[in-house]
Amino acid sequence: MPTFPADSVGLVTPQYQAFPDPLRLACGKSLAQFELVYETYGTLNANHSNAVLVCHALSGHHHAAGYHSEDDRKPGWWDSCIGPGKAIDTNRFFVVSLNNLGGCHGSTGPCSINPETGKSYGASFPVLSVEDWVNSQAQLADVLDIQCWAAVVGGSLGGMQAIQWALSYPERIRHCVAIATAPKLSAQNIAFNEVARQAIITDPDFHNGDYAAFGVIPKRGLMLARMVGHITYLSDDSMGEKFGRELRTDRLNYDFTSVEFQVESYLRYQGQEFSARFDANTYLLMTKALDYFDPAETQGGDLAKTLEKVTADFLVMSFTTDWRFSPARSRELVNALMAARKPVSYLEIEAAQGHDAFLLPIPRYVEALQGYMNRIEVD
Amino acid sequence: MPTFPADSVGLVTPQYQAFPDPLRLACGKSLAQFELVYETYGTLNANHSNAVLVCHALSGHHHAAGYHSEDDRKPGWWDSCIGPGKAIDTNRFFVVSLNNLGGCHGSTGPCSINPETGKSYGASFPVLSVEDWVNSQAQLADVLDIQCWAAVVGGSLGGMQAIQWALSYPERIRHCVAIATAPKLSAQNIAFNEVARQAIITDPDFHNGDYAAFGVIPKRGLMLARMVGHITYLSDDSMGEKFGRELRTDRLNYDFTSVEFQVESYLRYQGQEFSARFDANTYLLMTKALDYFDPAETQGGDLAKTLEKVTADFLVMSFTTDWRFSPARSRELVNALMAARKPVSYLEIEAAQGHDAFLLPIPRYVEALQGYMNRIEVD
Repeated sequence: MPTFPADSVGLVTPQYQAFPDPLRLACGKSLAQFELVYETYGTLNANHSNAVLVCHALSGHHHAAGYHSEDDRKPGWWDSCIGPGKAIDTNRFFVVSLNNLGGCHGSTGPCSINPETGKSYGASFPVLSVEDWVNSQAQLADVLDIQCWAAVVGGSLGGMQAIQWALSYPERIRHCVAIATAPKLSAQNIAFNEVARQAIITDPDFHNGDYAAFGVIPKRGLMLARMVGHITYLSDDSMGEKFGRELRTDRLNYDFTSVEFQVESYLRYQGQEFSARFDANTYLLMTKALDYFDPAETQGGDLAKTLEKVTADFLVMSFTTDWRFSPARSRELVNALMAARKPVSYLEIEAAQGHDAFLLPIPRYVEALQGYMNRIEVD
Repeated sequence: MPTFPADSVGLVTPQYQAFPDPLRLACGKSLAQFELVYETYGTLNANHSNAVLVCHALSGHHHAAGYHSEDDRKPGWWDSCIGPGKAIDTNRFFVVSLNNLGGCHGSTGPCSINPETGKSYGASFPVLSVEDWVNSQAQLADVLDIQCWAAVVGGSLGGMQAIQWALSYPERIRHCVAIATAPKLSAQNIAFNEVARQAIITDPDFHNGDYAAFGVIPKRGLMLARMVGHITYLSDDSMGEKFGRELRTDRLNYDFTSVEFQVESYLRYQGQEFSARFDANTYLLMTKALDYFDPAETQGGDLAKTLEKVTADFLVMSFTTDWRFSPARSRELVNALMAARKPVSYLEIEAAQGHDAFLLPIPRYVEALQGYMNRIEVD
């Protein structure tokens, strides 16, 4: 007898979908074939009008809600918002969550076997863009017989995918929910990504991306990349509240290897844990997709003009202490939507947790998302 | 015939001072003997009342002003503020600038030969604190027959030394000028330092700090450490203005090794150049001294109480877009000084350049510093 919470989607099983036809990519190359792993929560209605796509961020995956086994005590990454009666109410919506192409959680990516060589893609896996992801997601929608999403929802890199959906397939998305995101990266954002990439690439165990052939992983580089990333996910204040300058022991060690301050311990743990479960080539791909995202670029940087073709209603949300994608970046998007005379709701949520806030059950945030989602018609 | 600018201190020659007696350190160890390299600008007056100590920041050194040869086209790191008629006017002041103990520019540090072993100290060099630096600087003052500094001036980590002077030797400092600094690091500050240290320590060429014995340097780690540091020295806006999302070529490369965005090129250059000229063990020492600096710790965190013993007048300056040591951190110091009823002037300078601003010739900043310094009596 499973003992999952009453508002949980309960036991879920990942599904696999093969796509046998070539996918043309922004880089000019094609993937001859690919596979996507995904999960669904709730039931598709007769009109197929209640489907919601949830897009994941840099280190996310398809397992957004529920549990994988009856012993599983850790639900999916957005379980706080997806479930019966929750913000994205699975009593109303049919929710689809996938692992992006190039990922390392089951979809075709650098760790997958290239059928043309019989070896893992490794460094030969093509560089992907947010547009490529949206195109592959559209093929998944075709297979699921979803002509039009009630909503595409995402935070951070996931929000960029939601925006790209509204641009690439205006007729296939009714609502775009873009949370803690930006219409393009700033130079500082790119700089942090570049440090992460250099940490991975300069790790002697990286072997130009073909580390699998050498039976190693660039653990040190991935650890450093995650440590840098993690600092940018938290606000200065939330780090201060969480760790302060607390020492792990009652005195200073006067060496460089001991873990002295709590924040060092936390970061090293996060980095080490991540380096054991995430693929370095995928990390590189994800950061490049972030760097390259700049939909207004083809319109000379005019975001309002770029957004002229969208027909979706927008909900944009940001968090006060998020300095990775600050409220100012969300307002760029909101201002451009208003200039293009598009319907947009914008909410800046008071939250101390920095960029991480978009993953957390902050009451005003979750209630606002719920209010918006509940007003979406699904007949 | 030298062609140095008229307001330059001109040709300067580093001087070396040996200290044959043991220096007791905060870590409990002692250095049996040590040497400091320093430069002086201007002339010590008859009363020895016009001496100003300039303290350097993390990657700084003794060469703060003037030129080392007639062909030298790059003046010292604070030449914009030190010279005849400049903010720190060498017509009035006798300026002393040294390379801190543990440094890699001539003072005794990890690269120096340990006379007890005949080999370089390497990893065996003791961990230093800001207090240790101030104590060694006091010995230099003794040698120079300077009983009391007219002012001790520093930015960033240099500002911490100025504050420590006011605390350790209240009777030997009349004015404390603390620029773009903080009374202690935040958890986020420590986190960035920890990433830098991990980058160095996990570099296989680090060899537990004894890389010299292996004839290598941990170049990759130092490069990454500097890249991370450099991001924190610049404001998001100044990076945006300097680099934007400008590409180095006219199209994307769709790989991970090409330098695509200008900001990547800048960071890699900064990192590589730094890794060739700076010592990794010194970098570790400097970051630890920063982490450990917390003068109020012995007073249970009560900074005002800690400052009760100071007798120096304070000038505190911060820069609006500095997010490494934000204006709020300077205000902590100012508020504590006010609570302790100590004389303090505070100026928050409007500047787009982030933490780096303290090294730049920003007119309002330089004028304010000049105004304050010119009011210091030197009879």
